[in-house]
Order: sequence, then structure tokens, then C-alpha cells
Amino acid sequence: MITISERKSLIAAAMGQEPLDLRIDNVQVVNVYTGTIEAGCLGIKAGRIVTVDANTFEAAERFDGQGCYAMPGFIDTHVHIDSTLVTPENLSELIVPHGTTAMLADPMEVANVAGLEGFKAFVSSMGKLPYHLLIEVSSRVPTAPGLETTGGELGLAEVKEILSWPECISLGELDPSKVLGLRDEYLAKVEAAQALGKICNGHAAGLTGHNLVAYACGGMADDHECVTYEDAVARLRQGLVVSIREGSTERNLEPIINGVVRDNLDTRHMMFCTDDKHPDDLLEEGHIDYMVNRSIELGLSPIDAIQMASINAAKHFRIDHLIGSLTPGRWADVILADNLEHIIPNDVFVKGQHVAQKGKLIVDPPPSDYPEWLYNTVKVTSGKTAADFILSATGPTAEVTVIDLYPDQIINEVEQATLQVVDGNVVADTAQDVLKLAVVERYGKNGNIGLSFVRGFGLKRGALASTVAHDHHNIIVAGTNEADMAVCVRAIEQIQGGFVIAADGEVLGQLPLPIAGLLSDQPVSDIIRELENLTKISHSLEGKLPAPFMTISFISLPTVPELGLTDKGLVNVRQHQLVGPFR
Amino acid sequence: MITISERKSLIAAAMGQEPLDLRIDNVQVVNVYTGTIEAGCLGIKAGRIVTVDANTFEAAERFDGQGCYAMPGFIDTHVHIDSTLVTPENLSELIVPHGTTAMLADPMEVANVAGLEGFKAFVSSMGKLPYHLLIEVSSRVPTAPGLETTGGELGLAEVKEILSWPECISLGELDPSKVLGLRDEYLAKVEAAQALGKICNGHAAGLTGHNLVAYACGGMADDHECVTYEDAVARLRQGLVVSIREGSTERNLEPIINGVVRDNLDTRHMMFCTDDKHPDDLLEEGHIDYMVNRSIELGLSPIDAIQMASINAAKHFRIDHLIGSLTPGRWADVILADNLEHIIPNDVFVKGQHVAQKGKLIVDPPPSDYPEWLYNTVKVTSGKTAADFILSATGPTAEVTVIDLYPDQIINEVEQATLQVVDGNVVADTAQDVLKLAVVERYGKNGNIGLSFVRGFGLKRGALASTVAHDHHNIIVAGTNEADMAVCVRAIEQIQGGFVIAADGEVLGQLPLPIAGLLSDQPVSDIIRELENLTKISHSLEGKLPAPFMTISFISLPTVPELGLTDKGLVNVRQHQLVGPFR
Repeated sequence: MITISERKSLIAAAMGQEPLDLRIDNVQVVNVYTGTIEAGCLGIKAGRIVTVDANTFEAAERFDGQGCYAMPGFIDTHVHIDSTLVTPENLSELIVPHGTTAMLADPMEVANVAGLEGFKAFVSSMGKLPYHLLIEVSSRVPTAPGLETTGGELGLAEVKEILSWPECISLGELDPSKVLGLRDEYLAKVEAAQALGKICNGHAAGLTGHNLVAYACGGMADDHECVTYEDAVARLRQGLVVSIREGSTERNLEPIINGVVRDNLDTRHMMFCTDDKHPDDLLEEGHIDYMVNRSIELGLSPIDAIQMASINAAKHFRIDHLIGSLTPGRWADVILADNLEHIIPNDVFVKGQHVAQKGKLIVDPPPSDYPEWLYNTVKVTSGKTAADFILSATGPTAEVTVIDLYPDQIINEVEQATLQVVDGNVVADTAQDVLKLAVVERYGKNGNIGLSFVRGFGLKRGALASTVAHDHHNIIVAGTNEADMAVCVRAIEQIQGGFVIAADGEVLGQLPLPIAGLLSDQPVSDIIRELENLTKISHSLEGKLPAPFMTISFISLPTVPELGLTDKGLVNVRQHQLVGPFR
Repeated sequence: MITISERKSLIAAAMGQEPLDLRIDNVQVVNVYTGTIEAGCLGIKAGRIVTVDANTFEAAERFDGQGCYAMPGFIDTHVHIDSTLVTPENLSELIVPHGTTAMLADPMEVANVAGLEGFKAFVSSMGKLPYHLLIEVSSRVPTAPGLETTGGELGLAEVKEILSWPECISLGELDPSKVLGLRDEYLAKVEAAQALGKICNGHAAGLTGHNLVAYACGGMADDHECVTYEDAVARLRQGLVVSIREGSTERNLEPIINGVVRDNLDTRHMMFCTDDKHPDDLLEEGHIDYMVNRSIELGLSPIDAIQMASINAAKHFRIDHLIGSLTPGRWADVILADNLEHIIPNDVFVKGQHVAQKGKLIVDPPPSDYPEWLYNTVKVTSGKTAADFILSATGPTAEVTVIDLYPDQIINEVEQATLQVVDGNVVADTAQDVLKLAVVERYGKNGNIGLSFVRGFGLKRGALASTVAHDHHNIIVAGTNEADMAVCVRAIEQIQGGFVIAADGEVLGQLPLPIAGLLSDQPVSDIIRELENLTKISHSLEGKLPAPFMTISFISLPTVPELGLTDKGLVNVRQHQLVGPFR
């Protein structure tokens, strides 16, 4: 919000009655309202744009734009910051130099671990970050009540509290089963959001036909789960704005933009998001700038692509008076770039402050300052011995259900396998690439262990485990044998959360994520290096996945088809119920 | 708002678990999200759209769309209903058959007369009308504090109260002088609106350059005062959404749409309004449908024009979850029309109810049911005798200031005249076409009479008077002699407001507007006929104006240049101060 006194400053500055704080001279301004580009000079006061015609105005400071294009900062419309492994503070260096100036974040992970208090602690630095952190309040904590144990919950009261914050701009992605199941609690959350003038984000993964329509009837305003162009068009037809997603594993941009370009589809109801993108991918590829540039390469006009990354998002989220354009009164979030064919942000300004230059953050983000209790969330009461992972069966073999991974997707397929029973225990079979999979409850509540099997990791020895395990974030562990699985769980307890890989009774590598078991407060470069190391170790065990810890973290999700494993057991997602491990 | 139980009905109906209330079969659906047209069948439940693919669904009722185009109902984004002379209830028959299903109305006139209570009474039938009446809360009541006496005021507290209503969707058009003058009360109203997630409507009449930019810095979101295409582009450049206006006197559509078509300007940030349109013009020309059709004639694509009249408006006002498209969950406000080259609404549905057919309203609007006190707002303590209109002067003649009318405009010019002084009183001079003009305070507060002169009516005998006198709505009376002026005032008191014309001591005609002195609850056809009769009488007195009562109602406005007369005297608008009647 802008104070009345700030507002007066802007107005007075616009009339030349007060000097500006900053002028950015000599720029080609991309106007996302007219869709045109005009020579201009940005005038900035109290962190906001005053005018694009500031040439004759006095200013305390001047910056030479050197003829660059000036465009509004980019907006990521749906992201789980707490899935990046990096704190919001440390994330600054990964995203801001790429021109991202607003993250519309759903911190559902930390809420699943630590409830409302964890949520508040996580976003407590909001106002001090060198980007806008705005909140999509998690609508489904827990994601699958009754089917999983979580550390925290956000009920209707907690959600209403967060919805009332000015920094909260929507109700976060609602699980279709809650809508189609006519669940009062969730429909009340929709009602609460709309009563406050805020939108409801969708999550229409895999929905088609009548189910998609019914979901839209639930009051959803958008969807970021489009995999194909046809998905995108189907959603637009239902009045659902499309947020194209390009994360680390979900790569939806190319097919959708190809269709848009081919059909010359109006992009005004489309925008961008990453949902989940790992720090190494952010470092190598970039962030929303990558999506803008890829869209341009695929034939979209630069103006359309920039609008998708700015005003379309701001207007959809009803914050177009605050961000999304270089027009009077909006935050002065500015990217300067040499050309529009491939946008490389030379300079980035946020709230009128020069925050990044030539790909580097040039301000210090606030320190990562979290309460002690958020560093102590792993309380393991079982899973520390091999015996805990025994799946009992009689006879020489057993017919089991297997979670079959799709390459580069978070969805999976139901498969089956015939496995050996050794000493009354159904065991993994590396020849079939079938590992034993377990989810160990880690909030000290009940010591549950859910057991199943997974195909696709390739591992021939050892085990790997993670406390990043959507969305309940218990410990998920996959292994060729039970002993190494127990080694992983013990190591995870010791480091209070993170990634561990072990073989032959030894921990081979680990990345501590001690904040809620989800995040590290260490330098981003250290995190990335350790992540690369873990992947290498996985490959040394003949693991074949490019990002095995990303993959494992989604097998635990009881809401993405077909199957998800929680501490309570195997969940058939479409039926929304627990099913046994055996066929 | 939609209740949770209604929401459940929609979802269940979408899944085929409950029958629909209504199916509109065999239509070509205009989808304003994709910008495409597809064969479909509208499914409606609880007044909302469930699906456009209802072919296989059961429904309590079916309507044969006969292959017509189905499009969302049209939205008037800025209108003063209380300037139409017709109650919101009776207005239904003039607008709904033309496909208008939502009026975004700023009832500032009734608020000037009767304050918050009058405002509430005026909109009390909101939920029962056969169209959506949504509120732009008047930001400037009174318009010119200190320079006029009004019956009511809306201060910050009252505005905040109304802003909190779900039916209130914005802060109504803010006077630029309040913004550029850095007036706390008005900037606090802007802050209050934005804090509630609501937008602020602009009124950037005549603003250019730095003043326009400064006004945008004030938090304005749009403007409906663009006269030329260049005005429109200038506003879009500042992030101000453009509402093109086509009212009874202000005719801005053609030049703007011509420019849009010529430059192929993106229309996504443009929409339509009428501001002030008389019932006879609504009857003859139509309403938003007229603007849509005129735009198509001028070369705009029908889809663009329909989007301007629907989704663009809904999205701008942040009510796209409620209206503006034929997509799941939105109110079933539907127009059926044979073709898109010239859209004639054959059938109109509002909230799923068939409300108009072949140009006629086919439902009964609610009765006009206003409290007794709103029928008794004219309390005259002076102006009932000729002596009250004496303007004293010594000598044989006096040099006076004259308000010189512009044909077909609400602006006027400062002129001067030399007038005879008879018995110490400056008198009118029909030879120079200079009438005496008076504004008589009519709220029983102080008995003020403001006196001046006006040129342009042509009247050779008699006087005419009105309680529609923007924006203070005291009694304005222009006459060739003081006795007839007093006759008019006495008649106005008797009918408790309206239009009166008199000559030679006799009332020749009158149109009672007893609701707040602004509106009639009589049938629209009677109002139009009486209005025509009054104009004829005026012509019989050699009056030369086509709509003398429209003209006289704007001379009282102390905010439109050059001059305005209030009960406190003559106001120089640009100087924003009272000036004497003499040169």
C-alpha cells in the first residue's frame, strides 16, 4: 500500500513541484497498456513510477539508460519458494538478476511442516526483500486430510487470517477433489477469498470434460497445470486464465506457445510461472526471463511475451495498481535490456532501487533469520532399523503395485510387478528396476511407515531419502535394500532434514535442509554444488534420473495421478483412497 | 456473492449429478476468453452458467436458441442512473431489452440531495432488479464544498461504509482538482478503496501533460472523459483504462474507434459507458448495444466490441468471477442475437431468467418503493415572490457578467452585458437574449438565492425552472421577469421538484420529479411525452434550445468551465471561487 503522504509526493513530483528521487534517462519504454515502445525517461519517487516523460524534471539521482529498452519487472505467478531449497532471502541472487521482481508464492510446504506459525516465520522478511513476495495462501494444508500425517494445518480460520493481509493476493491452488467432492471447508475458503476481492488459484491437473467444468464452477480463476496446448485452450474456454509453467521437471512452455503462435491465439489471458524450479536450473537457465525468451524464439512477439510476464499477471491478480507496468503510481520495478529479441536484463530496479547489474545482485538481501524451533522439526520414532521396512508376505513371490515414473513429469502410472519374498519380506528387484519405497512419519506423532514400490530410478545399490516429500514432508526413502533405507533415515534425523544417499551401510552424501526440513540457509553456490554431488553419487550407484531428489519428492504426493505414497500407505489419487501395496 | 450451497449445486450440476434449471439449446457461443465462437448449449443453475456444453444434461426447462449467437450481457461502466429522470426500476424497460445486464452506477445526484440515507434508499431495490446494479461510490458529495449548499454529504466515513458493500465496486469519478490539490480527504478515499481491493474511477476531463500524469499518480484506474482518439491514447499510456462514452450530449465513440481501427490498437484496456443518457435517446438509439454496433460499423471486429462491452469491463472492475463471460460460475447474463454484424438482442437473460424478448421487457421490475421523506425534499424558504429576485443597482444601467451557453455542450463562456436598471433592479433583456438566472436553496437550510444572467435560451416571455441542477440540485430558474420566476418556484415547491415552465403568471407545463426532486416513478412513456411537451411550450415562448431543461441543469455546475451558478452566487470554475454578478 501507498501512504497518503507518499501519494502526495508522487502527485507533486508529477507536477514538477518536488524533485524526483531518480531519473532513468534515455530509454525505450515498453508500454504494456498500449503495446507500443516509445523513447522516454523514467521519473521515480518514493519507489514508484511518476512518469515516463521525466526529461525536464529535477532528480536527486540520475541513471543513464544508454538507449536500452525499459520494461516492467517479471512476475512468477505461481511458485513454491519453499521448494527451491533456498530461503527467500538467498533466492534473491538467483531470480532478481534475471529480472524477476515479484514472486506470487504459495508457501504450502512450510505450512505443512509447521502450520500458521511456520508460515508467518517463513514470510517474515517479506517487506525487506529486493523483490515483491506476495502470498497465495495455501488452501490445502494438509493436502489429503486423513490420508497423510502433517506437522501443521491451515484450517478455515488460519486461511481467513492470511487472506486478510494486504500481501496476500489469492487463495492458493485448490485440490480438485475438494471441489468435486463438495467439501464445505474448502468451498468456505473460496467464499472467504472472493468476499475479500481476491481470486482463487486452480490446480486442474489432468482434469478434462465435465470434471474440468465442475472445477471451474468451484470458483477457480486460473490453472497452471496445462501440459498441452489443447489443455490450455480447454481451460481458457472455461474462463480459467492459463499460467504456463516451466519448472525443473514440468516443461509445458514449448507445446503451449507453439500452439498459440500457430493459431495466433490471444495471449491476454495467459501468464507464466515456474511452480517448482531448482536452484541449479535457475542458475543455468534463468527464471521468467527464460520463459519470455523461449516464447520469443518460438515466434511470440516480444510485446506479447512481456505482457504475459507483467500486466497480464498483475491484472489477473488484481494488483495492476501496484505492479505490472511502467505507469504512474506503480512500483518502479524496471528491467533494462539491450534488445527485445533475446532479453538479457542488464540492470534491474525494484521499488526504484538499483538491485542487479549484469547478472549479479548488487544489494545485500536481509539475513535469513528464522526461529530456533523451525530448525528442529524432524522427530523420528520409527524407520531407524531395517526391520521397520519389512513388507510381510507368504509364498515365494508377491504381486505388488508399483509406482511407474514418467520421465520429466510428476505424474506416474500404476504398474504391477512380481517380486521375490525373502524370509517373509517382499524385496526390491534391481533387475526389474523396482525399488522399495517408504514414507516415514517425522513429526513424532505416530511413527507410521507407508510401504510400496517404485520403478524408474535405476539404482543398483543403496538408498536415497528426503524430507522434501510433497506435501506432507515426511521422510521418503527409496532403496535396493532395507538396511540402507534405515541408514538414510538415521542420517536425516541427525541433520534435521535434507537429502541423504547411502550404500552398503554408509552415508555417501547429504545436503542438510534444516529449516523445516525443506530449506538451507547456506550460500546458494554451496547448495547447488552439493546437489550436483548427490546426483553424481546417485549415478555412481547406476541411478539414471537427472534429478533423483526432485523426482522422489513428488512420489509422496497423494494428489497427482496415479499414485502417491504417504506415511499411511499407498493412495490411489483418482479414487482418493488408500489401497494396499499388493495387487 | 454465491452461497456455498449454490456453489455446490453448480458443481454437482456440472458433473451431471443434479439437473440444470435451464438449458439454452442450439447456440453459437461467443467465448470472450478465447475470442472464438463455438456451437454449444448453455447449462444454467442457480442463475449461473454451469457449462456451454450442456447437450447431454437434464434440465427443468429448455429454451431453443435457434442457432443464434449467445454472448455475455453488456456492461455500462459509468452511468448516473439518477440523471435519467427514471427510477432504477422503471429504467429496466429502457436498457434490458437492449442487452444491458449490468449498470455500474455512481448515484451522486441523490446523495447530494439526501446524503447516505438517500443513497441507500435509491439503491435499495438492487437485488431485485432485472439487471445488476453495482455501485461506484460517489467520491465528491458535495462537488464544490464551500461554494454551494447541498442537502446531503458523503464524507470519508460514509464513503468507507459504502465501499465495504459487496455491491460497491469502485470509488466513483474523482474530481482532478481534489487530486492535484493534494486534498487529504479525497486521497484518504483513494486509500480506502485500494485497501478494500477496489479501483478508483477517474474523471480526467480536459487533462493533458503533467496534470494528466499527476492525476494518474493519484491512484486513478480509468477515465471516461476522452473526447478524441489522442485523448484515449494519452490515457492508456498512463495506465488508465479508457471507457469510451456515448451519452446524450457527449458523443465520443466515433473519433476514438476510428483511431483504434486505423492503428489496430489493442482494445483490451478499453470499454464502454454512457455517463448521462436521456430516456428518449435510450428509447430511440439504444444503450451499450448502440455503441457495440456503431463500433462494428466503424470497422472494429465484433469479438473486440463484445469483449469491450463485457469481459474487459468485468476484469477492470475485478468482478470477472461474477459477470462478463459465459463461463462456469458467472451469472447467466446472456444475449441471443441472429448475427454479429449488427447485434439485435432477440432474447436477454439475466441471472438465468428470461427477462426480455424482441425489444420488450417481459418481466415486471420491482415497484418503485421509496420512503415518504424522499418524496419531500423541497423546502423553500425564499424565492416565492418576485421581490426575492431583485438584483439591486443604482443608475440607469449596470454592467453584468453573463453565462454564455455553447450549443450542445455543458461548458460555457464568460460574457458581459449592459442591462437596464428599473426601480433599482437589474432586469433581463430579451432583445439581447439575456435572461435573469437564479439558484434558490431548497433544503430549508439558509434561503440563499444566487443571482446572475444567462444568454442563449431565446425565451421572449416567461420563465423555466428545475430541481435537477448539478450537482447541488437546488432550484435553478431562468426568466424574462421576476414574477414568472417566482411562479415557477412556487409550482416546484408544490410538486416537490421537477421541471416547470410558466409565463404571464401561469404555469404552462410541468414534469413532477418528486423522488429527491430528481426522478419520476411514472411510466417512462409518460415522462418522455411530458418532456417533449415542455420543449414545445418553451418553443412557443420562442425558446430556441432543443433540450432547455437539460441545458439549464448544467449551468448550476460549479466544476465545469467557465462559470456555474449556485445558491451562494456565481462561481468562476477555473479560479474555484465566488465572483460577484457585476463586472
